[in-house]
Amino acid sequence: MREGRFRIGVVAPGSRIEPALGEKVTRLAETLYPDRPPDIFFHPQCSRSWGHFAGDDETRARAFLDVANDESFDALWFARGGYGSCRLAERVLPALTAAARQKAYLGYSDAGALLAGMHKEGFGGLAHGPMPSDVRYEGGDAAVKRALRFLVERAPDSLEGTVSPATTTAAFNITILSHLIGTPLQPDLAGHILMLEEVGEQMYRIDRALFHITGNAGIRSVAGIKLGRCSGIPPNEPDFGQTEEDVTRHWCGISGIPYLGRADIGHDANNKVVPFGRWRPA
Amino acid sequence: MREGRFRIGVVAPGSRIEPALGEKVTRLAETLYPDRPPDIFFHPQCSRSWGHFAGDDETRARAFLDVANDESFDALWFARGGYGSCRLAERVLPALTAAARQKAYLGYSDAGALLAGMHKEGFGGLAHGPMPSDVRYEGGDAAVKRALRFLVERAPDSLEGTVSPATTTAAFNITILSHLIGTPLQPDLAGHILMLEEVGEQMYRIDRALFHITGNAGIRSVAGIKLGRCSGIPPNEPDFGQTEEDVTRHWCGISGIPYLGRADIGHDANNKVVPFGRWRPA
Repeated sequence: MREGRFRIGVVAPGSRIEPALGEKVTRLAETLYPDRPPDIFFHPQCSRSWGHFAGDDETRARAFLDVANDESFDALWFARGGYGSCRLAERVLPALTAAARQKAYLGYSDAGALLAGMHKEGFGGLAHGPMPSDVRYEGGDAAVKRALRFLVERAPDSLEGTVSPATTTAAFNITILSHLIGTPLQPDLAGHILMLEEVGEQMYRIDRALFHITGNAGIRSVAGIKLGRCSGIPPNEPDFGQTEEDVTRHWCGISGIPYLGRADIGHDANNKVVPFGRWRPA
Repeated sequence: MREGRFRIGVVAPGSRIEPALGEKVTRLAETLYPDRPPDIFFHPQCSRSWGHFAGDDETRARAFLDVANDESFDALWFARGGYGSCRLAERVLPALTAAARQKAYLGYSDAGALLAGMHKEGFGGLAHGPMPSDVRYEGGDAAVKRALRFLVERAPDSLEGTVSPATTTAAFNITILSHLIGTPLQPDLAGHILMLEEVGEQMYRIDRALFHITGNAGIRSVAGIKLGRCSGIPPNEPDFGQTEEDVTRHWCGISGIPYLGRADIGHDANNKVVPFGRWRPA
C-alpha cells in the first residue's frame, strides 16, 4: 500500500456495469471506512458497450492494463463477470509489467480466465471473491464489504473457512475452468485444493463439464476438489436424477481425485474469498 | 458385408428414444429398399431410462459393446444424441475387439465423444451424419434415408459436398468437441478439414467454445475449419453483435487456422455425412 488511501481500480473485462453501481459501491466503502475510505476508481471502460461486451477487446484490454500496470493502484477489482475475459488474455498477459505483480486482483466467474493465466504466470496476489456487481444480490452489501475488507485489510474472516497458511488453494466457476482446459490459460493446479462453483447451468451441463475437467491429466494432480454452491440450476428434461454433489463424487471417483466436501463459495452474497496459491496473512 | 442382408445395430449411448421411432425407421428402410431391406436391430437398451440417460452407464456401455463387438453387424448406428456418450468412453474403448474395427459407425452431436475416442484409436469406419432420431425433423425422412444410403451403399451423394478421396475430414458439434479438449478423448486432427456445427447455444457460448477449441495446440494443426449450420440460437442479452461466421473468422484469425467457408452439416434434415479421416469410395 502506498502512502495515503488504499487505491482500487475497477475494470470490466467481460460484461458492462451501470455507472450507478459504481456510486453505490463507493458509498458502501465510505460506510465501512468512514475515517479513511479507499479510493475506488471505476475505469470509464466499465460502462462502455460493444455488443455483449463492456467495450471492444482493445478497449477492455487497455483498461485492464491501465490499472494493472499503474503502480499507484494497490488492487485491481473485476467489476463483473458475464463473458469476455478469455478474449483479452493474448493482449493482456504479455503486456503486464513489474508493477502489475505488486498488487491484488479480486474477481470470479468469467474473471477466472484472466486469473488462471496470471496464476500460470506466477502472479502472487490473485483471489476468487465478490465483485462490485454482487451488490445486486439480496444481502449483496455484505459481499461487497467482504471484498473490501479482504482487499484493504486482508481480513481473515473474509476467507473461505478452510483457507489457511498451510493450504494451497484455487477456485473457479466450473464452466469457465472447463473452457480453459488444454489451452495456454490452463493453470498449473498441482497440489491445490480446487474449489468449484456454478450458476445457471443444467445438471447435464455440470456433469459434462466435470467429466471434462477431471478428465485432464494436469487437473488430476490437484490435492482434492471441494464443491461450492451450484445455484439457479434450470430444470433438466427429463430429471437428471443426480445432484451436483452426486456427479462431483462420481467424477472424483473415476479420476482418482479426492472429494473433500463442500466449499463456501458461489454466485451469491455469501461467496467467501479464496486466494490462488498459498495464503499469506497480513 | 456378410452374406444376406446388411445388418445395422442401433444403440443409444446418450438419451433414450421411444420404441415407435424404431418402427418408423424400419418402415422407411423398407420403402427405400423394398427388395432387400437392411436388417435394423434396435437394441432394447435404446428405450431404457435412467434419469437423463437411456439406461445407466453400465447398461449403455454393454449395449454399445454388444453391437460393436458382434461381427454379424455391418454397422453401428447411434440412435440419438442428447448427452451421455462421454460417460461410457472409459468402459467402452478398452473393451472393443477386432470385430469392432470391421464395421461402420454413424452418428453426430453427443456421439462425437465416442467417435473422437475411436478415431484416436485408429478406427477407420467412422462418420458424422444423421441418426434415427432425426426422423423427427421436418423432412427428416430424407435424413434417415441419406444415412441408410451411406451405410448400405456408401452412396457418394450422401456425403458433404467437399468430401473427396483427396481430403481428410472430421466433423463435430462445437460444444461436444470443446468438452474433449485436453482429455484422453481429444482426437488427433492434424491435417484434417474440421467441420463444426451447433444447435441451441447462445452466441456468447459459441464464441467461448471456439476460443477454447482454437486455443488448443493440437487443434491448431488442422488444415482448416469449415462452419456448418448453427441453428436454434437463443437470444443473447444484450445482442451479441456478431454472427457465428463472424466469431469463427475471428478465432481462426487469432489462431492462424485457415477458415474455409461453410459446411453442409447441422442439426437438421439436410445434415450431410462427413467421414472421419480420408474417404474411401465403395
